[in-house]
Amino acid sequence: MSSGPIVRHARREDVPAILELIRELADYEHELSSVEATEEKLLSTIAFAPSSSTSTVPSAQETESTSSSKPARCLILLSPEGTPAGIALYFYNYSTWRARPGIYLEDLYVKQTERKKGYGKRLLVELAKEVVAMEGGRLEWSVLKWNEPSIKFYESIGANMMSEWVGMRVDGEGLNKLATLLD
Amino acid sequence: MSSGPIVRHARREDVPAILELIRELADYEHELSSVEATEEKLLSTIAFAPSSSTSTVPSAQETESTSSSKPARCLILLSPEGTPAGIALYFYNYSTWRARPGIYLEDLYVKQTERKKGYGKRLLVELAKEVVAMEGGRLEWSVLKWNEPSIKFYESIGANMMSEWVGMRVDGEGLNKLATLLD
Repeated sequence: MSSGPIVRHARREDVPAILELIRELADYEHELSSVEATEEKLLSTIAFAPSSSTSTVPSAQETESTSSSKPARCLILLSPEGTPAGIALYFYNYSTWRARPGIYLEDLYVKQTERKKGYGKRLLVELAKEVVAMEGGRLEWSVLKWNEPSIKFYESIGANMMSEWVGMRVDGEGLNKLATLLD
Repeated sequence: MSSGPIVRHARREDVPAILELIRELADYEHELSSVEATEEKLLSTIAFAPSSSTSTVPSAQETESTSSSKPARCLILLSPEGTPAGIALYFYNYSTWRARPGIYLEDLYVKQTERKKGYGKRLLVELAKEVVAMEGGRLEWSVLKWNEPSIKFYESIGANMMSEWVGMRVDGEGLNKLATLLD
C-alpha cells in the first residue's frame, strides 16, 4: 500500500494526542511551563468532528459549530502508519473591508520525527481549501521574525509578510486593569 | 442632561452607519477603492443584537451566535447626541497554550469629528470586559508600525507590542493557488 497521510478534523478522542503535540511544540520552544492546556480545557474550547464520522476529507460542516466560548477548530494529520504527526489549530477571522470571513491559523505543528515529508504544507493546503470553499477572504498566521527558514517556506507557497503591521496584546493582569479602567 | 456616550452591540438597522464609518476609515487611509463591503455583505457576516433589545450595556449573549460564515461582532458607540461616532469590529481568537478563547479586534474607528473624547478607549474597555467575562486569555489587535501616536496610546492602557512576530497572509489568487497546490 502506498497510501499517503490522512488529514481530518479532530475528534474528541484525539485530544490526548493533540495535547501531546502542543506540549512537544512548547518544549521545542523552551516554554513548556507556559502550557496551561489540559485535556479537559481542550475538550471544552475546540469544536470537534463527530466520533462516528468515517470521513477522511476535512469538512468543517461536519464538526460542532464554533462559538465565542468554543472558537477553535483543529485539523489532525495522521501518518500512513496511523500516528498523529501534526496539527493545525485555527479559528475564523474577519476582513472588514471585504466583509468576508477567513481563517487564522493559531498553531501549526509537525512532530520532529515526521518532518520533511510535506506535512506542514499539506495542512496549509487543507486550510486554504476551506477558505476557498467558504468564499473567504484570507488565510493568516504569525511567525517569529527570526525564523527565516519558515518565512522562506511560507513565501514559497504564496504567503506575504505583513511587515508594516505589529500586533498588540493585553493579557493577564493588564486585562483586568483595562476592563476596570473607566469604573 | 450630562449623559455620556452609549456603547452597545450593533443591530441590523445600524448597518448603513457602520458602512459609512468603514468607508470613512478607508478614505482616511486613502484606500477607499479597497472597500468591497456593502450593506448586504455586512448583514450576512456580522452577528447582530436583536433590534428589540433596549439594553445599553453590551452583552455578547444577547446577539446572534457567531459561526464560521458569520464570525464578526460589532460594538457601536453613540455620542450623547445619538450620532454613531465609533465602531469596534471583532471576532473570537484562541490561545492554544492556554486553551482559552479571547478577542481579536479587527477594526477600531472613531469619526474624525468625534476624536479626543476617549471614545476609542471606551470601546477597548468594553472589549476587555467581554474577554474578562468569558474568562478569556487575551485581547489582541494590529497597528501600523509607523503609527507611533496610536502605539503610545495602546501601551498607555496596558497593551504590549508583539515585536518578535510578523504576520503572514495568503489572499486573492494566492489562495486559489495554495488550495490546489497538491492536486
